[in-house]
Order: sequence, then C-alpha cells, then structure tokens
Amino acid sequence: MRLILVAGSTRTAAVDGISAAGATPELRWHTPSADAELVRYGRLVRAPLLPTSPTGCPTPALVTRAVVELLGLDVVVCDGGLAKPTGAPTVGFGAKPGRDVRDADPVSTAPGAFAAAERFGRSLDEDHLVVGETIPGGTTTALSTMRALGESYPVSSSLPDNPLARKKEIAEAALSASDLDPGEAVHHPELAVRFAGDPVLAVVSGLCVGALDSGTRVTLAGGTQMVAASALVRHAGSVGPMELATTSYLADHVDLAPAARDLDLDLTVTDPEFADDRLAGYATVGREGAAMGGALALADRADVLDAVEGRTLALLDSLDASHGDSTVEEDDRGP
Amino acid sequence: MRLILVAGSTRTAAVDGISAAGATPELRWHTPSADAELVRYGRLVRAPLLPTSPTGCPTPALVTRAVVELLGLDVVVCDGGLAKPTGAPTVGFGAKPGRDVRDADPVSTAPGAFAAAERFGRSLDEDHLVVGETIPGGTTTALSTMRALGESYPVSSSLPDNPLARKKEIAEAALSASDLDPGEAVHHPELAVRFAGDPVLAVVSGLCVGALDSGTRVTLAGGTQMVAASALVRHAGSVGPMELATTSYLADHVDLAPAARDLDLDLTVTDPEFADDRLAGYATVGREGAAMGGALALADRADVLDAVEGRTLALLDSLDASHGDSTVEEDDRGP
Repeated sequence: MRLILVAGSTRTAAVDGISAAGATPELRWHTPSADAELVRYGRLVRAPLLPTSPTGCPTPALVTRAVVELLGLDVVVCDGGLAKPTGAPTVGFGAKPGRDVRDADPVSTAPGAFAAAERFGRSLDEDHLVVGETIPGGTTTALSTMRALGESYPVSSSLPDNPLARKKEIAEAALSASDLDPGEAVHHPELAVRFAGDPVLAVVSGLCVGALDSGTRVTLAGGTQMVAASALVRHAGSVGPMELATTSYLADHVDLAPAARDLDLDLTVTDPEFADDRLAGYATVGREGAAMGGALALADRADVLDAVEGRTLALLDSLDASHGDSTVEEDDRGP
Repeated sequence: MRLILVAGSTRTAAVDGISAAGATPELRWHTPSADAELVRYGRLVRAPLLPTSPTGCPTPALVTRAVVELLGLDVVVCDGGLAKPTGAPTVGFGAKPGRDVRDADPVSTAPGAFAAAERFGRSLDEDHLVVGETIPGGTTTALSTMRALGESYPVSSSLPDNPLARKKEIAEAALSASDLDPGEAVHHPELAVRFAGDPVLAVVSGLCVGALDSGTRVTLAGGTQMVAASALVRHAGSVGPMELATTSYLADHVDLAPAARDLDLDLTVTDPEFADDRLAGYATVGREGAAMGGALALADRADVLDAVEGRTLALLDSLDASHGDSTVEEDDRGP
C-alpha cells in the first residue's frame, strides 16, 4: 500500500473569498508545497510557513502526517502543477499550475499530465493506492468540472460558510469562457478537466484510471474534489472498485451518498474525535484535505485512531518550536 | 538518518570506452533514472530495463536497495540532471544534464544547483545524511574536476580495465576548452564543477556544504567521484566531519588513503563478501555506485551484512521474473 499526495495549484484560488487554504492569498500559493513537505517529512524544508486558515486552523496535512508516522506509510508526492518550490521529492507529469477556470483553456497541460499519470499508476503495480490532494481553490474547479460532465453533486468548502453562489457563478463563467454547455463534456473527461478543471484533477484521475486498469485497489482520500475526480474516472469508462474515504466533518457538511451511489464509490466516513481546542477548527474550517480522511480511515482500520490526536498535537508543537524561516521569498516559479 | 541518491547525467558518458554503466551507449542515458527507481521502489516503473554492464553485471543499485529494505531506510532521490524520465520522486535544484566536459561551459546549471542543494541540505536539518550518486561517465568528470582544483587523486572505473589515458586526455581537453590551467580553480569549486565537472557533483557538494553547515554528519557513499565531491566541499571552505564509505572492490582497485588524509575523510571500506556467481561481476565491473559502499557500511553497523547477498539475489530474481517493458521509448527529455 502506498499513500500518494497530488499537490498543485490553480489561479482560481486567487478569486476573493473562495478558499481558506492559506492565511492570505499570497501564502496560499505555498500551501500545496508546504503540505507535501509536512506529509513527507513532518516538517517544513523549503516552504516558508505552516499553512493555516485565515482564522488560524492548521492544515489537515498534519493529521495525515500523524497517521503516516503511526503506521509507517510510504508517501509519494506527485506534482499536479506546483506553483512554489517544495523540498518534498515529487514525481512529475508535466502538469503546470492551472490558470483561472474563467480563462480560455485554463489547464492546457491536463491531457499530457493525465496520460503520464495513467501510465505511472499502471506501472506502479501496487495492491492498494490511497490518493489525496492539496490544491487551494480546488472545490471551485471541482464544481465546474462536474458541470461540464453534466454531474450535479454538491461541493464543500474550506470556509465556515460555503460561498456556493460565488462558486456557481465561477463555474458558469468557466464553461462559457470555453464555449461548453453544461454536460457537453459527458464521457469526455479530457475536455472537462482541461477546460473547466485543474491540474490536480487531471493527475488524480489519470493515476486512478491507470491503477484500476492494473488491478490496483484505489482509495480516494478526500471529499468533494475526489467526487469530481471519481466522476472523471467513471466518464473515462473505468469501472474498477473505488473507495471514497473522508472525514465526518466533511460528510456532515455535504451529503455524499448520491455521488457514492451513482459513481459506485464505497463510502468510508471517519470521525477523528478531536477534543483539543487547537484541532477544533477542523470541524468547521478545512474539514478535509491533504488525504486527511483517507489517513484517518487507515488509522481506524489499524486500530490506532485514538493515537492520532496526540501525534498531531506533538507535530504542531514541534513546528511551533522550530518557527522555521518565516520570510516568504519571491521566486521565479510563481504561476 | 536519511539516504540521498543524486541521479544525473553528462554527455561525457557518450565518449567511447569510458563507462560500463549501461549495456549500450543508448541505454546508459536511462541508468540513473532506473537506479533511482530501484533504490526507491525495488523495481522499475518508468525506466525500460535493469541497468547492466556490457558484460551483464547488474547495477549496484540492487545492493543499495537490498540494504534499504533490510534497514527500512528512508530514501530521497535528488535530480542531478536526469536525461530520462524516472518514476522515483525527485527533489529538483534546476540541474540539467551536463554537456561533454570538452565543450565550453558544460555545466551552466551548476552554480544554481549548488546553491539550491546547499539550502536544501541545510534545511533538511538531519542528524546524518548518507549521500550516493549515479551518473555514467562520472569518474571522467571527477578527474577533470580535480585537475581544475589542482588535486591529483586517482579515479576508478566501472570497466575491468580503467581507460585512464583516455580519461586524462578528456580532462586535459576539458580544461583547455574552458581556458583553465590545472589548479587554476583552487578554492573556486564553483568554477571547477561548472567548467570541468558534472551536475551530480554540483548537487552532491552543495548538499554536503549545507548539511555540514547545519551540524549534520555526512557520509559520502561512493568511491572516487565522492573524492572529487569532497574536494569541492573542502575547496568551498567547509571543514565539518565527513566519512567516505565505499566497497572493498573499489578500495582494492584505487588507493584512497592519500585523498582521505588530505581531505580529512574518515574512510570506511566494506567487503560485501558476495559468493554467488551472479554478483561476482561487482568485484571487477561496477565496483561501486548508487550508494552501494555506504549502504554496505550501514548494513555492517546494523549487523545485517550477511543478509545483503540473499536480499540482492531475491531482488534480481523478482526483476528477472517481471521482465518489464523492454522496449526503449524515445522521449523528449534526452540531453
């Protein structure tokens, strides 16, 4: 079994008020790179700061890392269009940061990335892949991707109040910018992800199609972005067994049952039962991300769910203690 | 403790008769990518074939992988200018494949790669880094690098008969192409590696300088290429404790004592005591590479040296059984 984290970015995250995956819009570009380092190393290497929501809730990547340590999981990070350097080793598929979905052809690297990720997923030849994502703005691109496919499942939010009206506006603008009618990309996932999606969705869905094709069991570790990824996989004609493993925080907020039924996903919902104040924010902000729900499901199955909170707090303490380099350097890899 | 494998390429390897790190010149471009996959996963993912010498001796990466499995080591692959795709996740420093050292400015990405690797080595903040390399043609660029620094230590070879005269010719041509006199780059490692070296040496030496600066203990896992890397580190003014850990096959072939003394390297030589015919080639071909000597030293310290041969043979069997995709695809990442 291997845990894969697909980390990337879309300029859609720069739209005001749609993402809490980072304390400020500028810091949000660093979130996927930082999440990748946290899940892979348990600390920051190149990324400047621990990602938090504007209200100070730490990234769910900490919870995933806690489970990685408890279970000794092997982590592979895949580059789904990173905008900033990461110290985590990454597998590349040619994905570049996505442009705003309201631009024409916002994810021109999607077809190549999908194909390369598909080959990789097939060649890895694992018994079981658990695949998570980290991409600020990703629920908005998930929504527009599903609209292009003609699927109408709801999406969640990393914000306390889901700015759904705003997301729907963006999704409509995305489709119209690419001259797509809702549902026009049915059975054409390559069109949906390229013209209405993001590079992380391209890599995740490619990985899944390849993995399923080689008989690998797939767990999608996440919420509504992973519903969009599953929709892409099913619209690609891939019918293998997939599990959607998410947190109770997410599942309490959005009804996943219709998507699970229609897309033939085995739904697993895990309640982390966090009691400490410092982790209380996950229930209303963040909720899911960086494979948190999948990691919790693995912890539950291994009977170590009780130990996750303590380990997460220990990580948070060690990161607070090290402070890290809190200056945010400008670099030439911005999207 | 973490095992770092720096994988890259130099066009110098295309010179006839200087490298056995690959069955044919064309396949040699794939060797570092394949070695990275073998050390990280124990199997091939994107690389087409198990690297062997022209006489069929398998890559030393198998031995390193055997130790990784026996000790549960964490492996991080760094991209030191890979020419072909690898399925191993890699940390990037902007290194590109090196040109022939006899070209002017053969490693123009060296200064940036050195600086980025230095920051990474410092930020990783490990107690102990074990650093290996895989780059066909690397002993020739090691020789010309040392000539530029004014160091005259001998280099080894992956071939049964070391084509030293040919290597010296190339080293001289390298210096003259870049208008450097022997020794002219003394205390200027950035000039030596850029004008007479290869991108792997740039990344390895940068990593070491950064690691030593943050108090990390460094083991250079390899032979004479690692002597050249140490020379770069010392010429950069870095004085921290470094160990050179290699195989008896290499140390029986080249006297490392003078370099160890002058460069203040703690020398560790490990005899793998392989008895099986299929591994006999390492004694006269290959000898060292892909961190083999350092891995053996770790196995010896953990008292599992006896188990390495069996594990290596099991890996070889599993690779023989899977065959893999034996077609060599052309791609756009050639150097």
